[in-house]
Amino acid sequence: MTARIHFTTGHGTRNDFVLLDDPDGTLELDAATVAALCDRRGGIVGDGVIRAVRTRAAGIEAPADAPEWFMDYRNADGSTAEMCGNGVRVLAAHLRRAGHERAERFSVWTRAGARSIEILDDPTDADPVWTVRVGIGRAGTASTGRTVAIAGHHLEATDVDLGNPHAVAFLPGALDLDQIDLTRRPGLEPEPADGANIELVVSRGPRHVAMRVYERGVGETQSCGTGVAAVAVAAASRAGDTSGAPWRVDVPGGTLEVGWTATGEVTLTGPAELVADGVTLV
Amino acid sequence: MTARIHFTTGHGTRNDFVLLDDPDGTLELDAATVAALCDRRGGIVGDGVIRAVRTRAAGIEAPADAPEWFMDYRNADGSTAEMCGNGVRVLAAHLRRAGHERAERFSVWTRAGARSIEILDDPTDADPVWTVRVGIGRAGTASTGRTVAIAGHHLEATDVDLGNPHAVAFLPGALDLDQIDLTRRPGLEPEPADGANIELVVSRGPRHVAMRVYERGVGETQSCGTGVAAVAVAAASRAGDTSGAPWRVDVPGGTLEVGWTATGEVTLTGPAELVADGVTLV
Repeated sequence: MTARIHFTTGHGTRNDFVLLDDPDGTLELDAATVAALCDRRGGIVGDGVIRAVRTRAAGIEAPADAPEWFMDYRNADGSTAEMCGNGVRVLAAHLRRAGHERAERFSVWTRAGARSIEILDDPTDADPVWTVRVGIGRAGTASTGRTVAIAGHHLEATDVDLGNPHAVAFLPGALDLDQIDLTRRPGLEPEPADGANIELVVSRGPRHVAMRVYERGVGETQSCGTGVAAVAVAAASRAGDTSGAPWRVDVPGGTLEVGWTATGEVTLTGPAELVADGVTLV
Repeated sequence: MTARIHFTTGHGTRNDFVLLDDPDGTLELDAATVAALCDRRGGIVGDGVIRAVRTRAAGIEAPADAPEWFMDYRNADGSTAEMCGNGVRVLAAHLRRAGHERAERFSVWTRAGARSIEILDDPTDADPVWTVRVGIGRAGTASTGRTVAIAGHHLEATDVDLGNPHAVAFLPGALDLDQIDLTRRPGLEPEPADGANIELVVSRGPRHVAMRVYERGVGETQSCGTGVAAVAVAAASRAGDTSGAPWRVDVPGGTLEVGWTATGEVTLTGPAELVADGVTLV
């Protein structure tokens, strides 16, 4: 890092981020700086960096009517990413806290396009957590005969496309979700050209499932926003549920709710917490 | 957490800490607060909390001539610990930066007694790292016929006592230190009543070894200050080296140097970095 950087840290279902408030796009943010900020021992610590910058100051191509604020999301290795379903809630909490957005409904611009935000709950002293609903686009599903190989079982997978690819597999009763070894990636046959996130799911009750996820290029994580949505879409499809009523999805990092708007967009509702404000020393 | 807490983060060879500056001992620091601060996803993040408090204000028993500053070290689970060989360097950097200690040599009080500090290098813009030498007491060694079982080998261990117990084993040429699986604890036979930290060592050259450590009650860590000292003591003994010249010890998190004072005290020399200042939001 070359200059002191002011930051805020936050997380959504234990998917954690370093937020940088940069309204006028003056921050030089190279890959090395992002990696140093995210470094889980020696940095500020995060799964990624989210720079909050005005769309017109972000140095990107965007339509003239794009939302005012751009979610400049960077992975922990410094590469850019299109969107992050947990990160966008944390960004929404930051924009609201900073006074950048004052309404309860607004949109943000991302590399995947506009995303609608609804603040359902602002934090209180007793419960310092935002509850945020985010529209994450439409889902496409397909049963392509793909299988997930785990613990000696070959499970039929549902392909779900939410901008990024997911392979969702329901566990048979013989397998305990908590006991599955996800230190290594499960087998996926055939392997999609661009890989896929793999979600393993069990039912917990009516419109209620629990899941674990092995993220493409990352490994097992505590929560993956689009993975949660993919699982709810696959589970609703499997159950023949076309009611549009929300599904509850438990992940190791917490619980999220997946719903559908009247126009068929998938929404993800969950917590966002802001943890600390700080400034780097080096 | 019940009130906003001002903190500094720092690390020594990637053993990371949350530092709390509390000169007059006014901070209420219960186990739940320590655990929340250390939480690696959702907290400020650290292997432990170090509260810098004047010894006379710390609410502890200490001799009248005890050093001015007390290292109140807490493990990530909120329990107290006697000392931390990497943490004491980071505390020394903090005391110096805060102006609490202005000399290059001073001592701090710990639950294991007084520890001497020598600041060898203050940071510069080009190299924002302190280099700190710490006296960590005398070492006792014994060969008790204990063995470490790893990857099908049974290795003779040297017991080293540095206030906490260590079992140091040198790997045969057939085993590659980097390839050893330390996701599980190696076997230790017979098991000491209070357990032991287990160090696995290979030679890297004259007075130069590399090691990995499985810490008692923790698992593999990137660095363990007393483990590094234990390894150097065992290696010097094994080599018949009574010169008192320093040994270099590589750990996954960096490199440390172990020496001996004229009076036979073991010293540990290594880096300390302060990463950020901040304040909690909840």
